[in-house]
Amino acid sequence: MKTPKPPYYAVIFTSTRTLVDDGYAETASRMVQLAETMPGFIGVESAREEVGITVSYWKSLDAIKAWQQHPEHMEAQRHGRKKWYETFTTRICLVERENEFSR
Amino acid sequence: MKTPKPPYYAVIFTSTRTLVDDGYAETASRMVQLAETMPGFIGVESAREEVGITVSYWKSLDAIKAWQQHPEHMEAQRHGRKKWYETFTTRICLVERENEFSR
Repeated sequence: MKTPKPPYYAVIFTSTRTLVDDGYAETASRMVQLAETMPGFIGVESAREEVGITVSYWKSLDAIKAWQQHPEHMEAQRHGRKKWYETFTTRICLVERENEFSR
Repeated sequence: MKTPKPPYYAVIFTSTRTLVDDGYAETASRMVQLAETMPGFIGVESAREEVGITVSYWKSLDAIKAWQQHPEHMEAQRHGRKKWYETFTTRICLVERENEFSR
């Protein structure tokens, strides 16, 4: 994931899922699409095994706030708490340094 | 993952793997064991699909620096660059806020 020279922000979203599907994959992929349209969005990457980890990168705290308050995202968050997630943690982080390797 | 009240630090390590195994899983699990013995270590969580994401949590930048410079970890990092990783990025982050949900 190409990110700018720090500082910028990262949101680390870690979660464990319930057994309920009911639109989860569709909503997850729609949320990525929608986030990509938000001002200040840099990128997102995800993986899930026992725990799911999604890290999204943002230019500013204001950009993160606007995303968290987007009506369609808020609706998805309600569904998440109601049915999709057993547990989750959202951490808002200032990325201070970055080191890249590529062969 | 239980973490203290912010601020604390997170290291976001994202990677893509080569096709080479050659001790990778053993070293990865040994590195978790070893990190757990480091002063200032809080916890670690990982998942891999197309991309691997490992987030470790630390009490301070000094704790992160000591971990990065641990001789056995440095040896693992050399192997990582030589054979296990196609690409990786290490991001050092200050966790400013945290929000938890549990049903």
